[in-house]
Amino acid sequence: MTEPLIAPPGLHDLIVADTEIGDVRGAEGFYHYRQYSAIELARTRSFEEVWFLFLYGHLPSAAELDDFVEVVHRMSVLPPEVGGILTAAALLGGERDSLSGLRTVLSAAGSATGVRPLWDSDDQQRRTDAIRVAALTPTILGALARIRAGEEPLQPRRDLSAAANWLYLISGQEPTPQHVRAIEHYLIATIDHGFNASTFTARVIASTGADVVAAVCGAIGSFSGPLHGGAPDRALDALDEIAAFGDPAEWARRQVDEHQRIMGFGHAVYRTADPRATMLRDIAAELGGPLVEQAVAAEAAITEVLAQAHPDQPRYANVEFYAGVVMECCGVPRSMFTPTFAVSRVVGWCANILEQARSRKIIRPAARYVGPLPAEPAAVPD
Amino acid sequence: MTEPLIAPPGLHDLIVADTEIGDVRGAEGFYHYRQYSAIELARTRSFEEVWFLFLYGHLPSAAELDDFVEVVHRMSVLPPEVGGILTAAALLGGERDSLSGLRTVLSAAGSATGVRPLWDSDDQQRRTDAIRVAALTPTILGALARIRAGEEPLQPRRDLSAAANWLYLISGQEPTPQHVRAIEHYLIATIDHGFNASTFTARVIASTGADVVAAVCGAIGSFSGPLHGGAPDRALDALDEIAAFGDPAEWARRQVDEHQRIMGFGHAVYRTADPRATMLRDIAAELGGPLVEQAVAAEAAITEVLAQAHPDQPRYANVEFYAGVVMECCGVPRSMFTPTFAVSRVVGWCANILEQARSRKIIRPAARYVGPLPAEPAAVPD
Repeated sequence: MTEPLIAPPGLHDLIVADTEIGDVRGAEGFYHYRQYSAIELARTRSFEEVWFLFLYGHLPSAAELDDFVEVVHRMSVLPPEVGGILTAAALLGGERDSLSGLRTVLSAAGSATGVRPLWDSDDQQRRTDAIRVAALTPTILGALARIRAGEEPLQPRRDLSAAANWLYLISGQEPTPQHVRAIEHYLIATIDHGFNASTFTARVIASTGADVVAAVCGAIGSFSGPLHGGAPDRALDALDEIAAFGDPAEWARRQVDEHQRIMGFGHAVYRTADPRATMLRDIAAELGGPLVEQAVAAEAAITEVLAQAHPDQPRYANVEFYAGVVMECCGVPRSMFTPTFAVSRVVGWCANILEQARSRKIIRPAARYVGPLPAEPAAVPD
Repeated sequence: MTEPLIAPPGLHDLIVADTEIGDVRGAEGFYHYRQYSAIELARTRSFEEVWFLFLYGHLPSAAELDDFVEVVHRMSVLPPEVGGILTAAALLGGERDSLSGLRTVLSAAGSATGVRPLWDSDDQQRRTDAIRVAALTPTILGALARIRAGEEPLQPRRDLSAAANWLYLISGQEPTPQHVRAIEHYLIATIDHGFNASTFTARVIASTGADVVAAVCGAIGSFSGPLHGGAPDRALDALDEIAAFGDPAEWARRQVDEHQRIMGFGHAVYRTADPRATMLRDIAAELGGPLVEQAVAAEAAITEVLAQAHPDQPRYANVEFYAGVVMECCGVPRSMFTPTFAVSRVVGWCANILEQARSRKIIRPAARYVGPLPAEPAAVPD
């Protein structure tokens, strides 16, 4: 009998799969989707183009993009038999409960559209199911918010891009091109980011051969966890606190003295500036206004205080810090920050699910029993 | 920079956590819950007693059991605001879609009952949420089946045990004591069985601090995967095929010649007889009847054919083989076999979720990028 292998706690830094989807290079402050810099994609491409890249492994031709946009639009319409569940789900939770509502309605939509187990499907069918789940996500999240606000849910418009549709679905207004591009940068930059807990959850479920909806419903669960780390509203709450307090440097020193974590600073993987924060700071500067000025000043003050407090381990603003600022400038209500993140991340989950399905190997680890041993003889008569 | 650690494919045999919940000793053909033989518990205890053992780590006193049964009964009542979603979900999928329906309704029930993130809850609150999820599971699964059959859903009865309630909820009839005890053996014996994919899924989600419902909804997804291996109806379908064919030994030889897997035989962990199959064979013998006689004869014939075909690696009947026989003898419809398994396994998931919540460490592994490398320079200007 060989010695059992023991994984590091939390599977930290343990390589559990090979992937062709992307990579995060923490030491370099760089991450990429397929062979393209994610930041370059965000600066130069549409959300639909990058979505296509995740699913097919290459950027679309003009004709492929036209077809894809058409399919996405068709798939984004909620099956009518799920309408009652949508309305009921919207009224169950509060405005912080968007993710549970999304899970409930997606789960029902999977049954309504007859989503097939990955192992009983070919590549084409799986991809169709994956496009539907990601296309339905903004429709459902937008509708949940509208119903909660006592308004009629909206249908996605064929004449609007994915990013524009998202702003339209939650506001009922046709957004300005500047707001669309700002949000589109954010959406593209947050599609994927290594084997975070929600992505890994989606892959574990997919490894059993279950369907795309099953895997995404699980990922939504991990995504809702306070430790998952995707909560741009927390960083903005901190900015409010700083504005009320006055001096950002003094505020930051107090947080450090009280051993409080400052939301929006530091990252588990990046040892440098978070490239997403750098890009979103530029976007915020273009949008301008008092909130942006306050954020830039607060970032500078907090970074300096943190550098003094932790000279060997500098902490920079992370994606959350400027994501909240950009979304607030674009009129996204704070309760819709996390749902906005879900609209992009679901595309990453789906690509990971499709990749996992091709490996055809169940993920089934082991545990070590450390409790009291059974007293009786181990052998059971046969 | 140290060499990255690479996990074995599928995390096979990799120890990812310490647990005090139980263990499976494949070489000995033995498994236990806490410090008790699972088979002994099934033979001598009620489902509620073992459920309590999973949650509290010790068997209940008479007074503790009374209280627990009362709490379980109270928690098993579906929140009325979820009634509409239940009816709608039942009508969406076919009879094979019970697990999706369960996920949809549980997800909604979580919102309706205000389930709290594990990280914002104390032990008491977590346990209450965990009891509610497991107590609601048979209520929901029974109601989905009844609505699909055009009948009124039933409420669990205070005067019936958990096992009796399950048979009552799906049949509308008060079951015989013999059927109750037979099903209770099965339910107890299948609560937990190592770090299978659904249990691991529940733990990954719980590690983010999300709520119990989020974790169980993910586990249901893995549980629905064709590779997860919990499908007692498949083994019974094979018995039907054998009955139609005639000679079981000749049927088994043809399967072996055609390299077809024989459902209900062989196990990933047990190198001996599956102790659950051994116990359920005894239960089936007590129930008696032509199906049991056919199953016993088929088991003997298939075991011998498999031993000849694989002399170094004998394959024995596994839990699925006799689970289907016992359930059929007790009048459980074949479409309710997997739901019956879910009614017991949800208790195991919940115990694993509570244990994971105490570790307060997110499960976040890594992946190795093996696709084409990005052409542009890696550094992003800051």
